[in-house]
Amino acid sequence: MSLSDDVALANRLADAAGAAIRPYYRGDIGLETKGDESPVTLADRAAEEAMRRILVAEVSRDGIQGEEFGIEREGATRRWVLDPIDGTVSFAAGRPIFGALIALLQDGFPVLGVIDQPVTGERWVGAMGRGTTFNGAEVRTRPCPRLPDAVLATTSPSLFDDHSAEHFMALAGKTAHRRMVWGGDCYNYGLLASGQIDLVCETGLKLHDFAALVPVVEGAGGTMADWNGEPLHAGSDGHVIALGDPARLEDVVEALACGH
Amino acid sequence: MSLSDDVALANRLADAAGAAIRPYYRGDIGLETKGDESPVTLADRAAEEAMRRILVAEVSRDGIQGEEFGIEREGATRRWVLDPIDGTVSFAAGRPIFGALIALLQDGFPVLGVIDQPVTGERWVGAMGRGTTFNGAEVRTRPCPRLPDAVLATTSPSLFDDHSAEHFMALAGKTAHRRMVWGGDCYNYGLLASGQIDLVCETGLKLHDFAALVPVVEGAGGTMADWNGEPLHAGSDGHVIALGDPARLEDVVEALACGH
Repeated sequence: MSLSDDVALANRLADAAGAAIRPYYRGDIGLETKGDESPVTLADRAAEEAMRRILVAEVSRDGIQGEEFGIEREGATRRWVLDPIDGTVSFAAGRPIFGALIALLQDGFPVLGVIDQPVTGERWVGAMGRGTTFNGAEVRTRPCPRLPDAVLATTSPSLFDDHSAEHFMALAGKTAHRRMVWGGDCYNYGLLASGQIDLVCETGLKLHDFAALVPVVEGAGGTMADWNGEPLHAGSDGHVIALGDPARLEDVVEALACGH
Repeated sequence: MSLSDDVALANRLADAAGAAIRPYYRGDIGLETKGDESPVTLADRAAEEAMRRILVAEVSRDGIQGEEFGIEREGATRRWVLDPIDGTVSFAAGRPIFGALIALLQDGFPVLGVIDQPVTGERWVGAMGRGTTFNGAEVRTRPCPRLPDAVLATTSPSLFDDHSAEHFMALAGKTAHRRMVWGGDCYNYGLLASGQIDLVCETGLKLHDFAALVPVVEGAGGTMADWNGEPLHAGSDGHVIALGDPARLEDVVEALACGH
């Protein structure tokens, strides 16, 4: 398959996920709590099942890894990584800032990613060697010459443990903290790709949470890394930073290292 | 003027604010920082000016109090209280969860309120003695029999000082903290009116931040109060709680009092 075929397939997966999710929005979502205490709904399951059906029918040799239904064909060099609803807490509260995440990994590295917001009809698509698009139009991150002017986003203070919270606060204190954005999950990374915010910093992300974000952010001119500044891959530890301006990577890693 | 006339006028004000705001969304918003370090944009000013023009033309004897351009006719028994963009930080980041707030106060008490989200086209309207509507259809808050099941929302941890943060955390620890919602400003109060979340708790709110919320929340069956459980009015201190289920007010006030 060509990359264009993969992008077209990813778009169909996002269409299917959105069609499965929209009927549940602000309705009876059947919220449950999983073993790891993360929430799951009927919409998460319906969306992942819809995407898996398409993948099994169209690319039966590729691996599939979804948040809700585990891994198939673990040894495959190509692996689709699915998070049907990233931001289930926002979804359950009726806020249109969650997203379906679709990534394609080649040998463990994300080469294609989609962030889809099915209520507002917003979709970011990134693929290796191409410019990231938002609803079909190319987008770029914005420059950020000084860290004190950076608008930082993160989903929730409760996602940090005491140790990582200190490092995070060391970074937050060096940014434009009065303009700091809370809540938002994957949607913040889309906004970063569109040049609306400068920096996202989070911990505890699993592969299905961050894999799709990397091609979207990097195809728009930004960069993603772990808290040591190393590239993200299937074995990363879930400490994630995204920067619109790659020139600030060293400043951010240094600021994070200052917390103790 | 009848209440119906006032509601119709409030809807025209929201229409005018939205028309002024939408062209700036995700564009060049001319962000500045005011003396109190809160952000303001060209869109805030354009929207408040548009609303003031209508009020001056149609209800020239009423008072006007807006976030950006101060108070006119301070002694009037009827006062329109305007916040053209509540959630300027979210607006500046391109997130569709800010809102224009319009309230009518009679002798210092809010009797009519509008929360308008001009990008997604969502509008909550509440007026004394009427049921709150969302885009024209009546909405109701949801029951919340137990505080440990309550979904709590708040805009930002940085809005609490050390003292109020302790009280807030005492409350948060007694709610469904894994489902806690961060970010959102006025939009969270609309969601509460629609039965999507159970509780909002904030500090530092000014009259223009909370006046419009009271009729929306109470007309949907909920209640608003200060942190002591007292009704909100023009002289309240900015410590605000909103509950979808008024039966939980005592539990919430008690939980807030436990922090020390």
